[in-house]
Amino acid sequence: MDNALVAVIMGSKSDWETMRHAAEMLTQFGVAHECRIISAHRTPALLTEFVARVEERGIEVIIAGAGGAAHLPGIIAAQTLVPVLGVPMESPALKGIDSLLSIVQMPAGIPVGTLAIGRAGATNAALLAIAILSAKRPDLREKLRQFRADQAQRIARETLP
Amino acid sequence: MDNALVAVIMGSKSDWETMRHAAEMLTQFGVAHECRIISAHRTPALLTEFVARVEERGIEVIIAGAGGAAHLPGIIAAQTLVPVLGVPMESPALKGIDSLLSIVQMPAGIPVGTLAIGRAGATNAALLAIAILSAKRPDLREKLRQFRADQAQRIARETLP
Amino acid sequence: MDNALVAVIMGSKSDWETMRHAAEMLTQFGVAHECRIISAHRTPALLTEFVARVEERGIEVIIAGAGGAAHLPGIIAAQTLVPVLGVPMESPALKGIDSLLSIVQMPAGIPVGTLAIGRAGATNAALLAIAILSAKRPDLREKLRQFRADQAQRIARETLP
Amino acid sequence: MDNALVAVIMGSKSDWETMRHAAEMLTQFGVAHECRIISAHRTPALLTEFVARVEERGIEVIIAGAGGAAHLPGIIAAQTLVPVLGVPMESPALKGIDSLLSIVQMPAGIPVGTLAIGRAGATNAALLAIAILSAKRPDLREKLRQFRADQAQRIARETLP
Amino acid sequence: MDNALVAVIMGSKSDWETMRHAAEMLTQFGVAHECRIISAHRTPALLTEFVARVEERGIEVIIAGAGGAAHLPGIIAAQTLVPVLGVPMESPALKGIDSLLSIVQMPAGIPVGTLAIGRAGATNAALLAIAILSAKRPDLREKLRQFRADQAQRIARETLP
Amino acid sequence: MDNALVAVIMGSKSDWETMRHAAEMLTQFGVAHECRIISAHRTPALLTEFVARVEERGIEVIIAGAGGAAHLPGIIAAQTLVPVLGVPMESPALKGIDSLLSIVQMPAGIPVGTLAIGRAGATNAALLAIAILSAKRPDLREKLRQFRADQAQRIARETLP
Amino acid sequence: MDNALVAVIMGSKSDWETMRHAAEMLTQFGVAHECRIISAHRTPALLTEFVARVEERGIEVIIAGAGGAAHLPGIIAAQTLVPVLGVPMESPALKGIDSLLSIVQMPAGIPVGTLAIGRAGATNAALLAIAILSAKRPDLREKLRQFRADQAQRIARETLP
Amino acid sequence: MDNALVAVIMGSKSDWETMRHAAEMLTQFGVAHECRIISAHRTPALLTEFVARVEERGIEVIIAGAGGAAHLPGIIAAQTLVPVLGVPMESPALKGIDSLLSIVQMPAGIPVGTLAIGRAGATNAALLAIAILSAKRPDLREKLRQFRADQAQRIARETLP
Repeated sequence: MDNALVAVIMGSKSDWETMRHAAEMLTQFGVAHECRIISAHRTPALLTEFVARVEERGIEVIIAGAGGAAHLPGIIAAQTLVPVLGVPMESPALKGIDSLLSIVQMPAGIPVGTLAIGRAGATNAALLAIAILSAKRPDLREKLRQFRADQAQRIARETLP
Repeated sequence: MDNALVAVIMGSKSDWETMRHAAEMLTQFGVAHECRIISAHRTPALLTEFVARVEERGIEVIIAGAGGAAHLPGIIAAQTLVPVLGVPMESPALKGIDSLLSIVQMPAGIPVGTLAIGRAGATNAALLAIAILSAKRPDLREKLRQFRADQAQRIARETLP
Repeated sequence: MDNALVAVIMGSKSDWETMRHAAEMLTQFGVAHECRIISAHRTPALLTEFVARVEERGIEVIIAGAGGAAHLPGIIAAQTLVPVLGVPMESPALKGIDSLLSIVQMPAGIPVGTLAIGRAGATNAALLAIAILSAKRPDLREKLRQFRADQAQRIARETLP
Repeated sequence: MDNALVAVIMGSKSDWETMRHAAEMLTQFGVAHECRIISAHRTPALLTEFVARVEERGIEVIIAGAGGAAHLPGIIAAQTLVPVLGVPMESPALKGIDSLLSIVQMPAGIPVGTLAIGRAGATNAALLAIAILSAKRPDLREKLRQFRADQAQRIARETLP
Repeated sequence: MDNALVAVIMGSKSDWETMRHAAEMLTQFGVAHECRIISAHRTPALLTEFVARVEERGIEVIIAGAGGAAHLPGIIAAQTLVPVLGVPMESPALKGIDSLLSIVQMPAGIPVGTLAIGRAGATNAALLAIAILSAKRPDLREKLRQFRADQAQRIARETLP
Repeated sequence: MDNALVAVIMGSKSDWETMRHAAEMLTQFGVAHECRIISAHRTPALLTEFVARVEERGIEVIIAGAGGAAHLPGIIAAQTLVPVLGVPMESPALKGIDSLLSIVQMPAGIPVGTLAIGRAGATNAALLAIAILSAKRPDLREKLRQFRADQAQRIARETLP
Repeated sequence: MDNALVAVIMGSKSDWETMRHAAEMLTQFGVAHECRIISAHRTPALLTEFVARVEERGIEVIIAGAGGAAHLPGIIAAQTLVPVLGVPMESPALKGIDSLLSIVQMPAGIPVGTLAIGRAGATNAALLAIAILSAKRPDLREKLRQFRADQAQRIARETLP
Repeated sequence: MDNALVAVIMGSKSDWETMRHAAEMLTQFGVAHECRIISAHRTPALLTEFVARVEERGIEVIIAGAGGAAHLPGIIAAQTLVPVLGVPMESPALKGIDSLLSIVQMPAGIPVGTLAIGRAGATNAALLAIAILSAKRPDLREKLRQFRADQAQRIARETLP
């Protein structure tokens, strides 16, 4: 897995049901990636260890999903120069508004590019990572262009009862 | 300062205007404490270094104030067994609801005892720290009892126009 | 039960499904505790009676769970010097944002250390109570250290499909 | 003051700026009333003492204003059969949404009739108290009818630039 | 029905599932009441007709339940001197926060005493109406006292597993 | 004024500061209109009287601005077939979220076309009224087309420091 | 379909379950209309193409439903002078408050008349469109008058258990 | 300006006070960029024209700031493969929660990486753009590393009164 370009990190196994949509999109585009469970709160040592090697391992984008007091994306971003994209989980009580604010309201100095709450956000984190990677990878950009065209066509062909 | 019982930590110098109310209350009760600026996002190394020595230095309660995506209290709590009390700053746009949710909605496993947004929260964090310390310090408990009595009397004596 | 160190109070029997997670965690750590239903609104006399004897009975932390206009933790805190931790219930209509604000936004002078809405908050209230108790009980602190280590290891070992 | 029909209670002297609008309206209608500062959190003994004598003293409506974790109206209501009307203060950070939810979301069994946040709520608490009192006081009802007619006329006469 | 003391009005038949809790409580106390569907928006003529005769028919309290842009309580209050109590329905999308704000945020001049969202609010509207009626009806006040005592006893007797 | 095509109604004189932006836009387009203060709560008779003659007087669109429990637009809409556009005022405590929800969340059967909170909403209510009127008035449609073109050009010409 | 007076547009096929209530109401009134799926984000070319011909095709009102970051109504409104009515979908996580704010908070210059979240909003968008169309179509206005009368009668006849 | 790597776009001149913090940060890092006012709603033709040439002109990241119904970032993202970062403006009434939700809650298929509300978000959009650009520009990455180190040192040196 050490040639992964994207790391998909989540704070808890229960986030997989959402975050797998990021992984599946990366797979669909043929982008090498790794998926791991690392909790900012419950496995801080693991986090530090992971982040320390991110750059040297050639990871170019980190996607981090977390819910509630969702500190994972911000704490990863604090320790690496690699761009971090955050995906707020739909939390049980507050439906993700807590996750969203905890991820997006970062102080000046340490950015996290935040996507929508839940599945759409996970899918879009992958697509934004692909857009970032494609700046210097023309073939990936073409795949993205094709994906957009297919998507437009699929919707244009949908019919109502 | 190495005999401090309480550490008052804040993520930015601008938080001092709020957090000084915690410090002043601790001073009023004669509780040794230290005040420091440590940012979970901008000085992660400093944070790790600070937290590593908290227990051995005899600090019994940590009060952490932060605003926006307020990760400081939770990230400290993740790395120490010392009780952590969180104070949400009144943030410029969302008035502290972001700070509150980012601090209080911690996942099971790592607690942060959260107080009110802003000045009342800072004052109360100090009072809760004092209540915790006073379990084994009868003199401190008496001071707290006196404080409550004085407070009640002061309000009872207030008159309306 | 008169050697209980922690009292777990809730406003209604329906809160038990949430608050039992606090009780179970205390049991897991071997911390003597009692669980009671006392409503700030519907049994005010019972509340006063209970609070009056808390200190002399040796209770060192009170955990109070309540929902909606969740006054229980604050009203207990107003009548005792023992630290009070509040757990907001997930309320039927507003999903606990009412419970959270009613518990956390206490005025300066009477603190309630507030945890997350629902089950995670109940679990964490127990863990914070244990952290508070462990200041002068080295064996409890070691158990907490072990709990954290086990928790980290369990997450580190989780695998994704 | 012992022939007061309405008691106007507030949790803090700073609430007077809002609550005086209730007092002024009662004065305008010639309804005997008393105004007092009693804090549910900081003067619980005073509260119990006050509430114990409310009924025998002939008070027919209690208006209680409070802010933040605004427990005052609910805690009074828990201890008396006299109708309680609650006025949420505009709180500094959350602008009264915390006060409103803390007052209105009472559990089944103990009602608080809640008015709008701030000045309009204070004015209306007095008007609702007057409406309640006027059921058996025809002269008061006539005054209320007149008030409404005057109010309608004043607005009907207003002109735009 | 023309000796009803309380009118229970709702904007739609679907509100009955909530509002019946008001009716049942009134029945339990033996308070004569009537229940009607009147929509502020869809049957404005019916509303005017109903309100016009409220006072002469001897109705002493109106309980009005409505959801969404819940104008019913306020529009009734605008046309009668009889005290109006509002019950916000739990609306499908916003869970009643829209209903609550639409009912409680009345302008100075026309009060609506607002209760909690949903079933608890309906129950409490009836209890507040009973408290209001009981000012001049000692037997009703005694029944209310008994209800409170029974309620306290029932909770005090509840046991946890 | 009896050839007015648009009526601009507001619940209180203090709304004029916002609603004048609707009036000024109508004036700029040369659309005959009238501006009036009518309160759904405080002048219900005036409201009924006004609405009764709207259709016969040839008014084709009603713009209604209101704040807080903003019932005015919905109550007008309930009594006329003329399209009603609602403008939520920025309310003092809750900044207009109460006004917005009170106006927009109308039940099926009685629509109110709702615009943005405050000044932008007032301006846009006028522009939407003009768009509606212009369906059968080609000259007005041309003026609107010109307005849009001018607006686009003005922005395109703006320069940054 | 080229004699459609109303276009009902939605961003995704899944919106049909809500938007069909607009279509059904238009059918009930015999108003020619067309229903189409056009996404502001995923089929921008289709959107431009559609909007370009709206005016010449004689469409007099556009109803656009969208959820989440609901840009569809605003982006259509930016490109046509035909009145646009927006219907916020009930979104999965935030229950439509995101859709509502994204649609209603348009800047001065480009209005969208916004209806309630979900099914009631879709129904009302059709009714508002009919009200707009009926200004110059007396038969349609009569149908609308009849619809209102029937609606009032149906509610007036409903009985409670 | 045609060698700009980053385009900083805003919907209105009044956004400059916020967005200039993005521009200043890019200048500080020596990253070629252009700043333009383009409104998704008021200058749609300008938007299409701008977006059409973005890729061929070599722009690698677009930063778009907008307020209220903030459609600008999403509508740009819909028409280009270049990564788009969105900055929610602090809006007058709702303080930017409307802007935030309008930008971040994009549907699956078209991502916008969203930053914090207001100035911190503008600063961080620039820093995230720099992080993205630095993947293939080692000197820029070193500058970013230095920026982080300086930032940490500056905070570590701050002292409290």
